[in-house]
Amino acid sequence: MTRKSIAIDMDNVIVDIETNWIAWYHNEFGIQVTKEAMHGIPEDQAFPDPLAARSLIYKPGFFRNAPLIPGAQEALLKLQENFDVFIVSAAMEFPNSLSEKYDWLAEHFPFIHWKNIVFCGDKRVINTDYLIDDHLKNLDFCQGTPILFTAGHNRGIDKYRRVNNWDEALELLAAE
Amino acid sequence: MTRKSIAIDMDNVIVDIETNWIAWYHNEFGIQVTKEAMHGIPEDQAFPDPLAARSLIYKPGFFRNAPLIPGAQEALLKLQENFDVFIVSAAMEFPNSLSEKYDWLAEHFPFIHWKNIVFCGDKRVINTDYLIDDHLKNLDFCQGTPILFTAGHNRGIDKYRRVNNWDEALELLAAE
Repeated sequence: MTRKSIAIDMDNVIVDIETNWIAWYHNEFGIQVTKEAMHGIPEDQAFPDPLAARSLIYKPGFFRNAPLIPGAQEALLKLQENFDVFIVSAAMEFPNSLSEKYDWLAEHFPFIHWKNIVFCGDKRVINTDYLIDDHLKNLDFCQGTPILFTAGHNRGIDKYRRVNNWDEALELLAAE
Repeated sequence: MTRKSIAIDMDNVIVDIETNWIAWYHNEFGIQVTKEAMHGIPEDQAFPDPLAARSLIYKPGFFRNAPLIPGAQEALLKLQENFDVFIVSAAMEFPNSLSEKYDWLAEHFPFIHWKNIVFCGDKRVINTDYLIDDHLKNLDFCQGTPILFTAGHNRGIDKYRRVNNWDEALELLAAE
């Protein structure tokens, strides 16, 4: 039997961008924003100054030093037993992130071969059996089965099957 | 009618890697290799010292300063009138090339939106209606119609429809 393929997004799925963004904003502007403030709205809107928040994404080190989503490493190792696992990140919007994301993956996911990494703009040209992502703009156009990974900004959306964490993702995929 | 999509490789298709590699080898080792020496064999094998030749690929500037394949700019502008044009490069093998390739595209193909750029490892997850590429390792697994773009190393191969230059590529695609 052919192994099925899974495309896995980076930001807010294996990389904890929310925590990172809040920490950078606090570090730069001295204001502490809560994760709850991000519920149901675009992330930058959760900050007192959205433009200032957005400027942080373009600073060197923003992506390189971001923390892991809990359980992501163990989950991807587990998934590799039965699936072809691809990391598919819409990194092209932030060119500074390209090498940082590559290095981040090499550090935290050394078991993901470079052949299985994709940095793209629009994910609609990616054809895998599943896409695990936190953004509708990606899931809406994916060619496989979309799985919504919970992030603050997507709370309340019930358009796709949702997983709240990596334990739930493993459970869902084990049943496929 | 939905526009069809074309994935276009970078190296030896829009970027003249052969000319660049020969120039870098000459500059570094003082030995002039001809393009004819590359016919029908892997590129690095055309150089007196293949390992030394290969080391050049990893040097800063190798991809950033490479020349254009003649006619590529005009052809892609023309193709954009009727197709969704994507640049799809297996850049992940050479992480140093990621930002260089991005900057190269921004300079020479400013009319290609970042949404239409893909840097990947294995092209088998890319699903477009056509793939224009010089390597069988990509064309063999592509999900659309493969088109072989002539490079020295692929001379003699008759597995796919071949175009020798961008004029022939435009002609072939105009008839589709």
